[in-house]
Amino acid sequence: MALFEKSTPTNEPIPTVTRQWILYQYPQRSHPISGSFKLTQRPLCPSTPTANTPSTRQGAHKPANKILLRTLWFSNDPAQRARINNASTDRLYTDFMREGDVMSATAIGEVIESSHPEYRKGDLVRGAFGWSEYVLADTDSSHDWQLMKIPPKTNPADFMAMGGTALTAYFGLLSVGAATSADKTIVVSAAAAAVGSIVTQIAKNVLGVKRVIGIGSSEEQCNVIKEKCSADIALNYKSPNFRREFEEATPEYVDIYFDITGGEALELSLRRIARNGRVVACGAIFRYDSSGEEMIVSAKAWTNIIFMKARVEGFTISEFKHRFPEAREQVFRWVRQGKIHPLKTVWRAKFEELPQGMVKLLKGEHVGKLVTEIITE
Amino acid sequence: MALFEKSTPTNEPIPTVTRQWILYQYPQRSHPISGSFKLTQRPLCPSTPTANTPSTRQGAHKPANKILLRTLWFSNDPAQRARINNASTDRLYTDFMREGDVMSATAIGEVIESSHPEYRKGDLVRGAFGWSEYVLADTDSSHDWQLMKIPPKTNPADFMAMGGTALTAYFGLLSVGAATSADKTIVVSAAAAAVGSIVTQIAKNVLGVKRVIGIGSSEEQCNVIKEKCSADIALNYKSPNFRREFEEATPEYVDIYFDITGGEALELSLRRIARNGRVVACGAIFRYDSSGEEMIVSAKAWTNIIFMKARVEGFTISEFKHRFPEAREQVFRWVRQGKIHPLKTVWRAKFEELPQGMVKLLKGEHVGKLVTEIITE
Repeated sequence: MALFEKSTPTNEPIPTVTRQWILYQYPQRSHPISGSFKLTQRPLCPSTPTANTPSTRQGAHKPANKILLRTLWFSNDPAQRARINNASTDRLYTDFMREGDVMSATAIGEVIESSHPEYRKGDLVRGAFGWSEYVLADTDSSHDWQLMKIPPKTNPADFMAMGGTALTAYFGLLSVGAATSADKTIVVSAAAAAVGSIVTQIAKNVLGVKRVIGIGSSEEQCNVIKEKCSADIALNYKSPNFRREFEEATPEYVDIYFDITGGEALELSLRRIARNGRVVACGAIFRYDSSGEEMIVSAKAWTNIIFMKARVEGFTISEFKHRFPEAREQVFRWVRQGKIHPLKTVWRAKFEELPQGMVKLLKGEHVGKLVTEIITE
Repeated sequence: MALFEKSTPTNEPIPTVTRQWILYQYPQRSHPISGSFKLTQRPLCPSTPTANTPSTRQGAHKPANKILLRTLWFSNDPAQRARINNASTDRLYTDFMREGDVMSATAIGEVIESSHPEYRKGDLVRGAFGWSEYVLADTDSSHDWQLMKIPPKTNPADFMAMGGTALTAYFGLLSVGAATSADKTIVVSAAAAAVGSIVTQIAKNVLGVKRVIGIGSSEEQCNVIKEKCSADIALNYKSPNFRREFEEATPEYVDIYFDITGGEALELSLRRIARNGRVVACGAIFRYDSSGEEMIVSAKAWTNIIFMKARVEGFTISEFKHRFPEAREQVFRWVRQGKIHPLKTVWRAKFEELPQGMVKLLKGEHVGKLVTEIITE
């Protein structure tokens, strides 16, 4: 067929349409989150990436090279949930979404056909493909697509666990939190999950921080936090004695609280914040699904920010784009040195079940990075 | 009399005792704040300063030079209220107070007798004298006492309004808040009060920020905020439409919120925070008198810290001690240039009425720096 100018031979039927999950309506409190999406079918034609990043390659000089991929692994990220809130137009990020957009997601696809010499049939390629079953990507805008070939012999789920997740942990802890070996106590929320598990391992195994405390939501997660992430202490926030346990676990107070969840751990960390302590505001996952009108920080906790000269700083990973290569190299070095290990939970599902991945993610019962692997039979 | 080795001649009777207000008990919610203090009388002998700062001059080489002062003007500061809360021992600052301590305060006294050539009878001297009617200060520990002579022809209340108050405004806005002319909107709470009035004037008259919004608690204060502090907009937080007015006043959102009060203005500022916005956490005056268990920041406001990459940073002026001379010089230059004007309210009272100054301060009905001037007749 003549989909590409310089087509590689293929024996498979080349799809001309693809199924896609679109954001049908912004989440409503009265409906389950999975009802926010709708499965559609669209002609397969070159399109812009799904992350709503404006192309930086408009007016490219070279003739377009294209690759056709079938997506097989999908990354499930709390940021996806945050991104589909109905934000007013002038509060939009580039990566907030509008109704009707293909749901944004990082995915790994297998190359089915390619007119670009660097991408061959069978290669696994990561990109901002969104919830699309097939993708026809223009390699001249590979930056927009965030295309990256998976190294040979690499487990795709491991690769995902060490992607944006690891970069978020890296920049959040080291740049925003300015963590060093001199910090005595670092508390990490959702420490069994994707970002938290990497933060915990960097704090303990790379920086050698004296007291690394990870917070989980079950005894199973607490075991993972201690045994796989090397935390000194694991606290279950569902414990009836959580407040007392938190206090007892922080005799030297909290130098850094890495916040992914918001909620009680945030409040307690501010109450126990050390002088010059820092709160890395990375996420508030347990609030993304609410109206957000609940009050979460008390006046007592807040005044500690003043008295303890503390700093609370929010960030998203996009502001560190220029430093991604450096960070990736460092993170992979630590993996090779055995200092950090990717943690993941792989959920096998059909393409038409994709939104259930978000439901699972928000439940928070998994360990490490939650990856959806598409059943192809 | 032979109080000093090299005494200047005097016709007045030299006191041998002084009255002092001590912190009798930490404030209790069930009692008025003025009941936390007790008037005592103690022998007048060389003592350490009241700010609980450990002496940096122990074992001084020179023989002690002493000055005897009668305190005539007292500074009323929100920090005094914060300082007398019952903080657990390992959360203490050097300037938190213990029961039985002379109440800490900056004051201006008149020299009655002196054995130091630089301090003469009749000189006005500012220092960390506390709520003490007479003070016998060792000039060899002048740094601990924070002694500073008032320049001739200077109004003592004006001098107080440009002291620690102005330095707090200076470092809070420019160093912690990192305010520049590029900021479009700066919101200042308690903008008619001591620190806020200086912050407002620096923002508008020095930096030339496009939209400076001051918050007050009465129409009278709002007039002061606009007319004397040059704010573009003054908002009365007691207005029934405060939330809507705040929103309408911030069409380009809030680059910097200078927080002295906590409360609704803090919550609203976080809701309206601009990308890379900053909250300077300088005080929470309206909460100092409460148990602090009330919830003040909503989840919705908090998530804006993440999405807008905002920063909340607490500070106290003590961390900038090394830069006080530079800041004083700059602030006084702006005063001479007519860019900032000290605002003050002088309350004339007897020494035995001193604690009422704190009651007045917490009511917040005054304008500018609240100074207590002692009636000497």
